[in-house]
Amino acid sequence: MIIVLRPDCTREQQLAFADKLKNDYDVKVNTWEGIHSTVLGLIGDTTQIDIEYIDAQDIVESVKRVQEPYKKANRKFHPENTVIEVAGLKIGDGSLHIMAGPCSVESEEQIVGIAKSVQKSGATFLRGGAFKPRTSPYAFQGLKAEGLDLMKIARKETGLPIVTEIMRTSHIDMFESVDIIQVGARNMQNFELLKELGKTDKPILLKRGLSATIEEWLMSAEYIMAGGNNNVILCERGIRTYENFTRNTLDVSAIPIIKKLSHLPVIVDPSHASGKSWLVEPLAMAAVAAGADGLIIEVHNDPPHALSDGAQSLTPKQFDKVAKKIFKLKEALK
Amino acid sequence: MIIVLRPDCTREQQLAFADKLKNDYDVKVNTWEGIHSTVLGLIGDTTQIDIEYIDAQDIVESVKRVQEPYKKANRKFHPENTVIEVAGLKIGDGSLHIMAGPCSVESEEQIVGIAKSVQKSGATFLRGGAFKPRTSPYAFQGLKAEGLDLMKIARKETGLPIVTEIMRTSHIDMFESVDIIQVGARNMQNFELLKELGKTDKPILLKRGLSATIEEWLMSAEYIMAGGNNNVILCERGIRTYENFTRNTLDVSAIPIIKKLSHLPVIVDPSHASGKSWLVEPLAMAAVAAGADGLIIEVHNDPPHALSDGAQSLTPKQFDKVAKKIFKLKEALK
Amino acid sequence: MIIVLRPDCTREQQLAFADKLKNDYDVKVNTWEGIHSTVLGLIGDTTQIDIEYIDAQDIVESVKRVQEPYKKANRKFHPENTVIEVAGLKIGDGSLHIMAGPCSVESEEQIVGIAKSVQKSGATFLRGGAFKPRTSPYAFQGLKAEGLDLMKIARKETGLPIVTEIMRTSHIDMFESVDIIQVGARNMQNFELLKELGKTDKPILLKRGLSATIEEWLMSAEYIMAGGNNNVILCERGIRTYENFTRNTLDVSAIPIIKKLSHLPVIVDPSHASGKSWLVEPLAMAAVAAGADGLIIEVHNDPPHALSDGAQSLTPKQFDKVAKKIFKLKEALK
Amino acid sequence: MIIVLRPDCTREQQLAFADKLKNDYDVKVNTWEGIHSTVLGLIGDTTQIDIEYIDAQDIVESVKRVQEPYKKANRKFHPENTVIEVAGLKIGDGSLHIMAGPCSVESEEQIVGIAKSVQKSGATFLRGGAFKPRTSPYAFQGLKAEGLDLMKIARKETGLPIVTEIMRTSHIDMFESVDIIQVGARNMQNFELLKELGKTDKPILLKRGLSATIEEWLMSAEYIMAGGNNNVILCERGIRTYENFTRNTLDVSAIPIIKKLSHLPVIVDPSHASGKSWLVEPLAMAAVAAGADGLIIEVHNDPPHALSDGAQSLTPKQFDKVAKKIFKLKEALK
Repeated sequence: MIIVLRPDCTREQQLAFADKLKNDYDVKVNTWEGIHSTVLGLIGDTTQIDIEYIDAQDIVESVKRVQEPYKKANRKFHPENTVIEVAGLKIGDGSLHIMAGPCSVESEEQIVGIAKSVQKSGATFLRGGAFKPRTSPYAFQGLKAEGLDLMKIARKETGLPIVTEIMRTSHIDMFESVDIIQVGARNMQNFELLKELGKTDKPILLKRGLSATIEEWLMSAEYIMAGGNNNVILCERGIRTYENFTRNTLDVSAIPIIKKLSHLPVIVDPSHASGKSWLVEPLAMAAVAAGADGLIIEVHNDPPHALSDGAQSLTPKQFDKVAKKIFKLKEALK
Repeated sequence: MIIVLRPDCTREQQLAFADKLKNDYDVKVNTWEGIHSTVLGLIGDTTQIDIEYIDAQDIVESVKRVQEPYKKANRKFHPENTVIEVAGLKIGDGSLHIMAGPCSVESEEQIVGIAKSVQKSGATFLRGGAFKPRTSPYAFQGLKAEGLDLMKIARKETGLPIVTEIMRTSHIDMFESVDIIQVGARNMQNFELLKELGKTDKPILLKRGLSATIEEWLMSAEYIMAGGNNNVILCERGIRTYENFTRNTLDVSAIPIIKKLSHLPVIVDPSHASGKSWLVEPLAMAAVAAGADGLIIEVHNDPPHALSDGAQSLTPKQFDKVAKKIFKLKEALK
Repeated sequence: MIIVLRPDCTREQQLAFADKLKNDYDVKVNTWEGIHSTVLGLIGDTTQIDIEYIDAQDIVESVKRVQEPYKKANRKFHPENTVIEVAGLKIGDGSLHIMAGPCSVESEEQIVGIAKSVQKSGATFLRGGAFKPRTSPYAFQGLKAEGLDLMKIARKETGLPIVTEIMRTSHIDMFESVDIIQVGARNMQNFELLKELGKTDKPILLKRGLSATIEEWLMSAEYIMAGGNNNVILCERGIRTYENFTRNTLDVSAIPIIKKLSHLPVIVDPSHASGKSWLVEPLAMAAVAAGADGLIIEVHNDPPHALSDGAQSLTPKQFDKVAKKIFKLKEALK
Repeated sequence: MIIVLRPDCTREQQLAFADKLKNDYDVKVNTWEGIHSTVLGLIGDTTQIDIEYIDAQDIVESVKRVQEPYKKANRKFHPENTVIEVAGLKIGDGSLHIMAGPCSVESEEQIVGIAKSVQKSGATFLRGGAFKPRTSPYAFQGLKAEGLDLMKIARKETGLPIVTEIMRTSHIDMFESVDIIQVGARNMQNFELLKELGKTDKPILLKRGLSATIEEWLMSAEYIMAGGNNNVILCERGIRTYENFTRNTLDVSAIPIIKKLSHLPVIVDPSHASGKSWLVEPLAMAAVAAGADGLIIEVHNDPPHALSDGAQSLTPKQFDKVAKKIFKLKEALK
């Protein structure tokens, strides 16, 4: 950590501050005197130091971290890739997984039908929403517990492990038999939820917040991991920018950046990133070419009658075509 | 609601879709035929219609709402200002309220001392954090229940009503005696929390999300109001933009926009909006000049030793000077 | 064009306004009366209508275009792809072109050496900066006219056509023998420059502005085309967002969107989009998988000693490796 | 300047690099060895050092400036406010100037009429567009040279100095008798134009680019000042964000930040910042309360018939009311 002091800081203030830092934290403090300002360099484990505390000092002009503020999610301290095993499948080992299914579970017939269909096309996980975060209180909020039950039926019928979103801590028990628990973009910094999920051993699919930096996203993963649960899969799903032709802007760079900074697997959601079904294929292709470990894609038997997010859903037939292209691309990249 | 159909939509498809809309919702459908495309206009209560459902139709090119999607928060249906009474004080009646206090409650001495001091300077509410949402799991997370108790002591000593942040639904009972419950920016779309707060009759201070549009913010207020609780105070606290000199960018335009679109009171948090104590005064002045009903300002007896957000806190002496300028300005605006 | 009138608009105002629209423009006006508001629908060629003029009317609440505001760049009026021929090469015909070279031309030896090297790796164009737009007036501004001459020498030595950036209208004559003239991101809305380039018949590489919407970008292409020059190649080079790990955020979705809205070719600049050489490969791969017609990549014989943008440049050896992967990917996509 | 070296950098590389820095620039280099990385601190005038050059070194992990990259615009080297005199009026001396007039000059009658009217209301400058940067090539582009002549007539009739926008370097002679030359947001980084304006002694009103950081904006001022022209007035006019209720988002914080970082005067354009006439008053009030040296406001005798930007223009009567409130506020702030 590097601390630039204000030009008007006195020598006494500077010495007192350096002493305080040495005493409060287990760090060494080096001092440089420049022409306009003095700079302190802290050496040691600075993840414990609250950067805002430092920044609040009257005598501090600016402060910069040299070390990343996350440890457990950091590739520096865990060089090999984390591979997460779910129902015998391995995520993060170089293979490509497609999680597919409807935005909302609507009926047994619907979810079982879609599950069988996407499985045939090569999907290895079934996604589906039982509890739905909706911008409007008047919009369909999901089938809730019943939706979970229907997903389990579809799992039984197909063998596909299931991925579904949790929205409150009090539901954790109810999600016990879910294979991968999804934390949605709007809850990426619902720290109470993250802490509770950190106490379980469930694989967590952590979506990136609408305007979260990559560092904040990794800090949310760190919340889960700090509780003891290392099974975190990151999911890029588009960020909010000024461009409003698409619902969000897919940040495809996030894939190689996460791979460099962290050892956790990263997948991509081209459906939410674009909000338009005709963009799913090119964005999915881009994500795989950039190194994603998987994709999560919305598929609905009848998108115009879907109870949510129909505009971005593929039909099973469209999905089959997209999946074929994706697997062909993955093959060529080997 | 106005629906533009794709150029290749057939006359049969168009008629079938119009019929479906008439049957499914209580609306009238008008049709215009243009040269390149046909347009449908829906007349009636369209807040019930899911715009994504419409957008998902194969034959739909684009769709636009004419009516806002919020009703209870909408000034069109409630032209007079909502005035919220808390402990005999009125928020939204044209007066100016300052809520002041530390980011985090740290000790009885600290919170009581600050409370007395800010009260002397004209603050009418005491703010303070007991449960703290922090980006890092390793940062100080607040004194929690003990912090709440210390705030109540400060209230008893000064008579100032208290404002503090809630982070999970299971804490609602614990917050029973809090005067105004704050929902933080990161929880603005924690819909489960909003729904539960809608069942209480507590005044809710709803902070704008980091990248929430004004419409999304009003939709989150609508979640609380849809549950029966109309006591919502909106709080602009800066939005995330590309500019990173400040922590956030204060959207001062949000004040007159909220006043036009909604009847709810709106206050401003210049401390979080800037992240720098020297910016609090000019931003507070701007907010009041633009018509804010109040301000929420961080004050700490000893900012360099604050356990959180010290960089943006004023000392009691600085706060006194700022408050004087603010009240003088408010007087001049009458 | 659809115009929503204010609820308080009188019947007389509405009729007078509709008459005015019919007289001023060659359009038909349809009227719908809703419960809360009246809506006018304009049918005919509305690209001539200034949307701001409509929006300024006292009686207008909001206005929405149904037709895109660009015509010559619009795929609706020109369904087949535009293919641009440069020195016998075809851009936009389904093949993939790589333009490679240094950010700045520095010496004959440098540019000729790089040209030969990238040609061997498969590049079909030589890029290089002679006039450099730099944020700081104190930074190296390019070799200017001498840089152009050196590029022509490199062209003569290798046969590679050259691509270089223009910064002012008075230089157009000097750029006569350049094969593709680049308009940089900061000049995307330098309308005077666009108009003058519209009078030439040179292929123009139009980079997307730092915060330009896709529609604004196409409108800038329209400026060039309105002058009679249809040889426009669009170049996505990353947009400005809140995320600052990378210099810009590559908007990979722009590729399929441009392909849908326009008939013009679109290429991608992964070097500027990321600002980091280790991100060039994954972003280039993503761009090709998403359907780009080409790539423009910075290559420098000695990046640490490059006079500009060294951080994002590849060495010739790194470029060779990346080019091999890209061509292999392109082959697999056929 | 502080340079963090990569963990794998060898001692030899580090020493060689430090030597190179000392030789190439007139700086001293200090070295700290941390546990995970080594840090170099450069002491001396680092504005000459290209930060991208440093960042491009293989052995460099990251680099941070301690000194700002601008010198002439920097308050550190010029502590007192710059006061710019135009036709006997002083901008930046603590007084408040309002520049008012139409977006586009349309006729002698129009511009003279508006000039007389805004002068009566207290405006001290007449603004008006002769050359108009328009997103669409099909929109009205201004009366050009004729518009300039009409502005001079209005100046003669009222004595108000005139402010108008330049769009290309070849027009500088034509703008000789203009009192303040405006550089629009889209040309803020048209460096060729800035350089040429730096050779004149005209006051320049430099609008902030749509997505320019405050540092980039000051660097553009530096371009003009580096040429010898210190008469730069900065103009905040709203930035591009994800929020699209307003055309732009007024960054009111920019006012106190510019005042702290620079000695140059700063004014605000509430008309372009919002794009809506009903927002001009609250945003103007906020700007003045935050410390702006002036305002530039669009006024049109007949906004619904304005040839550009009508939606954001005030009528002379509305302007009179707004000006009265602004001057009353300014009085109260003294």
